[in-house]
Amino acid sequence: MKSEHILKELRDRNPRGIARAISLVEDNDPLADEILASLDDGLVEQATVLGITGPPGAGKSTLTDRIISKYRSQGKRVGVIAVDPSSPLSGGAILGDRIRMMGHALDQDVVVRSMATRGRLGGLCAAAGAAVRILAGSGCTVIIIETVGVGQSEMDIIRLADITALVLAPGLGDDIQAMKAGLLEVADLMIVNKADCEGAETLAMDLESIAREGGKEKERAKICMTVASEGKGIDDLLAAIDAFDASHRESGERRARRERAYDLEVLDWAIEMIKPSIIERIKKGRPDRKGDPRLQAAKLLEGNER
Amino acid sequence: MKSEHILKELRDRNPRGIARAISLVEDNDPLADEILASLDDGLVEQATVLGITGPPGAGKSTLTDRIISKYRSQGKRVGVIAVDPSSPLSGGAILGDRIRMMGHALDQDVVVRSMATRGRLGGLCAAAGAAVRILAGSGCTVIIIETVGVGQSEMDIIRLADITALVLAPGLGDDIQAMKAGLLEVADLMIVNKADCEGAETLAMDLESIAREGGKEKERAKICMTVASEGKGIDDLLAAIDAFDASHRESGERRARRERAYDLEVLDWAIEMIKPSIIERIKKGRPDRKGDPRLQAAKLLEGNER
Repeated sequence: MKSEHILKELRDRNPRGIARAISLVEDNDPLADEILASLDDGLVEQATVLGITGPPGAGKSTLTDRIISKYRSQGKRVGVIAVDPSSPLSGGAILGDRIRMMGHALDQDVVVRSMATRGRLGGLCAAAGAAVRILAGSGCTVIIIETVGVGQSEMDIIRLADITALVLAPGLGDDIQAMKAGLLEVADLMIVNKADCEGAETLAMDLESIAREGGKEKERAKICMTVASEGKGIDDLLAAIDAFDASHRESGERRARRERAYDLEVLDWAIEMIKPSIIERIKKGRPDRKGDPRLQAAKLLEGNER
Repeated sequence: MKSEHILKELRDRNPRGIARAISLVEDNDPLADEILASLDDGLVEQATVLGITGPPGAGKSTLTDRIISKYRSQGKRVGVIAVDPSSPLSGGAILGDRIRMMGHALDQDVVVRSMATRGRLGGLCAAAGAAVRILAGSGCTVIIIETVGVGQSEMDIIRLADITALVLAPGLGDDIQAMKAGLLEVADLMIVNKADCEGAETLAMDLESIAREGGKEKERAKICMTVASEGKGIDDLLAAIDAFDASHRESGERRARRERAYDLEVLDWAIEMIKPSIIERIKKGRPDRKGDPRLQAAKLLEGNER
């Protein structure tokens, strides 16, 4: 049984086995079903999923690196899912990540997996969700999802996280006030990185006032100041993350988020499963491509329960 | 018949009618079917769809503004679909666009529609495709799709364009070499905007060498230098766009792209149509949320032809 072999590798925390399991999911291999079904739900349930997002240049990777080190010093095993926007225009994030993560390259208890978004027609949430499970199943108690906070699919996957930290930095030229609604929606914690640079105080004050407005529907997002390149502020940040996690476990909000994420994953998988047959029908269905695509789609689905 | 009324408004080029038609599509209103089915296919077929993409800060909006002016001076009616990434982190693009387009605000023959990506669970391609049709049906002979070139969904919609121009600028700190593959894939034309700034020549040379590598599968992307803020290089750019369009109409490549875009739209609509029933089934299907989401999805679809 090949899947049993891979499951044993997962239990043994063998990095190659973990990589193989995630690849099987990404490739839609039938073996993936057996592996995913056999993972220890308790481990998945217990692991903390931390989302780290922010615009390019905010210092996400350096910060992630520091957070990993801190968790490692607490003896925790850490999984990282780095979502590569891999769009032609997203910049050097990909190379940057690799280089910065090198500090943990020899540490068997830091498992880094990058997932590309390009070339995918959806399914990123589904694949990332499965990767979270696999990492948790291999004993990671903290799983970090790092993603550039731009783009629809990239933002969607943040919904898989129990806690989302938004990293900003002064001087990125973003009009923070204009992004108010979005910030409130996404961030449980706001991090002002490069806090030793000019403009950091102003940025923090802007965020402070934005956080205040969120007041009613949501608990107020805490603001942490860090200088990731020098390791400053990381202890306070971790304390804030832990406190947030503890309060959400206590209040049931964590469970509610997990349930929403679960439904999102099911939906994403269902769409992935249906898609090939639709593509097949498009291919053989019509010799011409006349008329409105919406009507064509409706015709294509006719006779099938929608 | 309300749809007949809206169709008349479209023929009359009434901006409010156009806006209403696009909103009906976005709201998935049944009236949208009648409208989309009644559009003049010949107009849709003839209109040129120009995609303009690039990272924040490259000067896309200013450039788009100049391109609009030029087409207007040729007497062409222009539609613009501005895809708002509207993610919390995408920066001030939204406000910026509005302000810069103001120059055309009183011109009845420039129709600007912005489409948000946030809050949408897919369907952006479908909606944007329908908007292209509606704009063409209201007499726009050039339709510009402007989108930030970051993020999966945002890139997907560029596939609706007959010609894609990629706007870059020196000093954005992007590692162009690292993005090679993506650039080749996406760009029919590469624009070095802010060509009067330091680093423009180097950027152009980098792009030149990247374009050369694309050689075989694709015709070599032309590189245009512009200073959009001063209107420099716009004539040459328009000439390059026109030449590209003419050669693709001639070679049949334009038709091939339209067919691919059509299939993509049908797929996107079909998924949109199927989605509500899946969500419904998720909602009532399971009291617990145990086990692997992938298996849950498979169970959910059981008994239905996939």
